[in-house]
Amino acid sequence: MGRPSDAREKLLEAAGRLISARGYTAVGVSEICDEAGVKKGSFYHFFDSKRDLVLDVIDSYWEHMAEGLELTLGGAGKPLARLERFLRANANEACRGRDAVGHVCGCPLGNLALELSTQDELLREKLNEVFGYWTSRLAAVLEEATQAGELDLGDPQRAAGDLVAFVEGRVLLSKLHNDPESLADLAPSVLALLRALPGVSAQQTTA
Amino acid sequence: MGRPSDAREKLLEAAGRLISARGYTAVGVSEICDEAGVKKGSFYHFFDSKRDLVLDVIDSYWEHMAEGLELTLGGAGKPLARLERFLRANANEACRGRDAVGHVCGCPLGNLALELSTQDELLREKLNEVFGYWTSRLAAVLEEATQAGELDLGDPQRAAGDLVAFVEGRVLLSKLHNDPESLADLAPSVLALLRALPGVSAQQTTA
Repeated sequence: MGRPSDAREKLLEAAGRLISARGYTAVGVSEICDEAGVKKGSFYHFFDSKRDLVLDVIDSYWEHMAEGLELTLGGAGKPLARLERFLRANANEACRGRDAVGHVCGCPLGNLALELSTQDELLREKLNEVFGYWTSRLAAVLEEATQAGELDLGDPQRAAGDLVAFVEGRVLLSKLHNDPESLADLAPSVLALLRALPGVSAQQTTA
Repeated sequence: MGRPSDAREKLLEAAGRLISARGYTAVGVSEICDEAGVKKGSFYHFFDSKRDLVLDVIDSYWEHMAEGLELTLGGAGKPLARLERFLRANANEACRGRDAVGHVCGCPLGNLALELSTQDELLREKLNEVFGYWTSRLAAVLEEATQAGELDLGDPQRAAGDLVAFVEGRVLLSKLHNDPESLADLAPSVLALLRALPGVSAQQTTA
C-alpha cells in the first residue's frame, strides 16, 4: 500500500484517469480505490468526499496543462510560432491518448465544465477559475504577438476567449468522431481565426 | 396518467428536460418517471432501458434544433443574414433557458457528445449522425453564401465543421460562466471566422 503520501497521490492519479475517460458522475469512490490499489478507509483519510477529491483532480489537470503551456508558449521563438507549437502539442497529445486507451478523451477540463457547471456551484467556480488562468496565459502570448506586429488585436483577452472556445469546440468534435487526426489542422485554423478577429471588433461597434 | 401515447410523450419530455440540465449518467429512470408523472411499469412498456430512451431523446433534441434551423436558415433573406438569424436565435434561447431554470444548460447534443462518446459506441454514432445533419444544413447555407458572392469558401462542408466547433465552444464557455449574454456577439464572431477561412486552405496547402 506504500506510505500514506503515496496513497493520496495514487488516488489522485487513478481518479484523474477514470474521470478523464468517463466523467465525474459515472465514476464512484470504490472504483477509484480499486484502480489506485488503496483501501476505502484511506480514501476518507485524505478526502471528505468524491467532490473534495475532484477539486484536487482539477488542480492536477491544470498543473499538467500549465506545464504544457510553459513548455510550448514559454520557449524560444516568435509569439505565433510558440502558439502554434502549443496547438500542435495538443493535437499530438490527443493522438497519444487515443492510442493508449482506444478513445479520444477530449479536454478533461472541458468535459468537467459541461458535466458539472449546472450541478455544483463550487465546482463550476473552480473550473471557471482554471479556464481563467488558461485564457490569461494565452492572452499574454496574443498581447506579445500584437506588440511584435504579428497580429492586430484590439482586445487580446477577448481574442484568447475565442481561441479557447474554438479549441474546446474542435476537441469536442474530435472526441465525438473519435478522430484525433481531425486536430491536425487546428493550428492553421486558429491562426486564421486570430487574424480575422479585428473585424469582429469593427462589426461590434456598429452592431 | 392519460393514454399510453401520452405517457410515452411525457417520459420523453421529462427525460429531455432532466438530461439537458444534468446529463445522462446523473439522471435515473425513477426520477424520469417521477418528473413525467408516469409509473415505472409504463416506462418499461415503452423503453427497454434508459439507453433505449436516450436514443429517442437525442432524436427529439434534433427535431427541436431542425425546426429552429428551418425557421431561421430556411426563411427569407440573403444566406449570411439567415445564418446570423440562426446564431442570434441560439443566443436568445440560452437567455430564455437561464431565466427559466437559473442555469445556462448549454447545447444538449454537445453535452451528450462530451459525456458519452467514450462510453457507448452506439450513442456516439447516433450523436455523430445528428451532428452530421446539423453540419450539412449549415454547409448548404455556406454554399449558398459562396454562390451569392457573400463568402469565398473553398470547402463549405469543412467550414461548417469549424462553425459548429466554434459555436459549441462558445456555448461551453457560456455554460461554464453561467452567462448567456456572453453569446450576444456570437453572430459577428462567427461571420469573422467564416471570412477568414479561405486563408486556412491557403496555409494548409503549404503546410
